Amino acid sequence: MKTISENRCFGGVQGVYSHASKVNDCEMTFGLFLPREAEDGPVPVLWYLSGLTCTHENAMTKAGAQAFAAEHGIALVFPDTSPRGEGVANHEDYDLGQGAGFYVNATQDPWAPHFRMWDYIAEELPNAIDAAFEIDPERQAITGHSMGGHGALTLAMHQPERFRSVSAFAPIANPTQSDWGRKQFSAYLGDNEAAWAAHDATLLMRERGFDGEVLIDQGGSDQFLDLLKPEALAEAMAARRQPGTFRIQEGYDHSYYFVSTFIPDHIEFHAEALWA
Amino acid sequence: MKTISENRCFGGVQGVYSHASKVNDCEMTFGLFLPREAEDGPVPVLWYLSGLTCTHENAMTKAGAQAFAAEHGIALVFPDTSPRGEGVANHEDYDLGQGAGFYVNATQDPWAPHFRMWDYIAEELPNAIDAAFEIDPERQAITGHSMGGHGALTLAMHQPERFRSVSAFAPIANPTQSDWGRKQFSAYLGDNEAAWAAHDATLLMRERGFDGEVLIDQGGSDQFLDLLKPEALAEAMAARRQPGTFRIQEGYDHSYYFVSTFIPDHIEFHAEALWA
Repeated sequence: MKTISENRCFGGVQGVYSHASKVNDCEMTFGLFLPREAEDGPVPVLWYLSGLTCTHENAMTKAGAQAFAAEHGIALVFPDTSPRGEGVANHEDYDLGQGAGFYVNATQDPWAPHFRMWDYIAEELPNAIDAAFEIDPERQAITGHSMGGHGALTLAMHQPERFRSVSAFAPIANPTQSDWGRKQFSAYLGDNEAAWAAHDATLLMRERGFDGEVLIDQGGSDQFLDLLKPEALAEAMAARRQPGTFRIQEGYDHSYYFVSTFIPDHIEFHAEALWA
Repeated sequence: MKTISENRCFGGVQGVYSHASKVNDCEMTFGLFLPREAEDGPVPVLWYLSGLTCTHENAMTKAGAQAFAAEHGIALVFPDTSPRGEGVANHEDYDLGQGAGFYVNATQDPWAPHFRMWDYIAEELPNAIDAAFEIDPERQAITGHSMGGHGALTLAMHQPERFRSVSAFAPIANPTQSDWGRKQFSAYLGDNEAAWAAHDATLLMRERGFDGEVLIDQGGSDQFLDLLKPEALAEAMAARRQPGTFRIQEGYDHSYYFVSTFIPDHIEFHAEALWA
C-alpha cells in the first residue's frame, strides 16, 4: 500500500493510496477519508462508486461528502472505475474500457486479463483496506452515481450480508435494456444475455431485492433519462414492496451539483443503518 | 452576457457566464450561484476570489460553498483570476501571467493592455452582475484563498463602503516581503516599491484596517507558510486592535480540503454581517 497524498480534512484525513491489484493485474489507486474517530479504533465505512470517465478523484473533490461523513464518524472509500495503465486494453469511446469498468468481471478479449472490477470491489479492495486501516468490516454501506449507482445496487443485492444499506444517485437502472449496458455487457461478457442479468439492478430487484432500506435520487431534468431508465427500477421496487424511497428531484440534472445537493441526505440515511 | 451552463444546485442555480470585459479587453468567464430566494428579489452576495492557477471553476466545484450559501440565502460569485485568450500576454511560470493576475492593474508591458484585475473586481464585474441578476449591491461581502485572500483583503480595505465583511483562507498576507508578491509586483507595477504598498494586506492593516469584522483561517501545516507570512498580518491585526479573528488550524495544509473544512464558518460569518 503506497501513500500518494494525505490532507487534513474536517478533522480527519483524506488520503489517496495505491496498491498492486491481483484481480485487475495492475496498480490501482483509491481515495479513503478517515474521520477523526478512526484514531481511536475501527469506524463504519461507506463505499462510493463513481460513474463513466471518473477516477477515484471526482467524488472525492466534488461531492462534498467528507463534511457529513465527519459529522457521523464514518469512513468513505472512493475506488477507481476501471483498471488502468500500459498494457491495459482501452477503447476510443468514453463509455468502454478505461474509466468504464461497469463493475463486472470481463470474460471476453481484449478485456478479460484486467477488467475484473466486480471481484475488485466485492473482495480484493475491502480486504486490502481492512488490513491496512481502522475500518469496521461489520459496518459497511454502499452508494454510487450513474454507472456507480448501477455498481452499488448490484453489489448490494448480491452481498446483503456485507452491506447494511444501499443508495444511488441517478443509477443506470436497467442496463440490459439500455445503450449504457448492452454495449458494455456485449464487449465484456459476450452475447449470451443470460450472463447479463446478474448485473441489472431492475432484474435483481424483481428477483431478490435488498434486505434493508434503499434510497434512490434521480434528477427530473437529467439529460440521460433515456439511458438511465429510472422508471423500470421504480416499478420494480414498488412491485416488490422493497422498503425504501425513490425520489424524483425536480430541475436537477446529472452533474455533481445534483450529487452534492443530496449527499447530506444519503450520508444521514447510511449513518442510521451503520450506527443502528 | 452569455450563458455557458446552468445547473440546479441546493434549490438554486449554479451558473457559468461570460461577457466582454472592457477593462481587461478580453472575454471573461465567471461562476454565479443564485439561491432559491433570488427568484423573488435581490439577495446578498459573497465574492470568492481564487488563488494561483485557478479559473472560475476550482472553488465552484471543490469548496462546497453552495450548501451553506443556500442555507443563508446568499449568492456567490466566482471570478476568474486573470484575463485569458489569444493576444493576452503570458509567462511560462505558474505564478505570473494567465492564472496569476494578483488583483492589480498592470502598468508595465507586456501586461498593461489586459491585466487590470483590480478594476475588474472593484467595478466592472459587480456592475455587470448587478445589471443582469437579482443581487443586492448594498449587501456585499468578500473572501478568497491564497492569492485570492490577498485580493479579498486588499479590496475590502480599499472599498469599506462596499463590503460589510471580509475573510480569507491562507492569504498571501505580506506580498511586498514575499516571493509571492515581489516577483509579480515588479512585473506588473514596475520597480518603484511605493506603488506596491496599496496591494499589501499587512501594510493596509497597519495603515487603515477594515471597518467591520475580519476572519482569517490559516492551516498550521500549510506547505507555503514561508511565502504567505501569516505572522505579519496577525501582528498587524492585533496591533491595530482590528475587530476580528485570526485562527491557526492545526494539521491543515493549503489545499481545498482545508478550504472546504472551514467554508461553513466563513459563510456563517458573512451571513451575520450581510443580514444584519
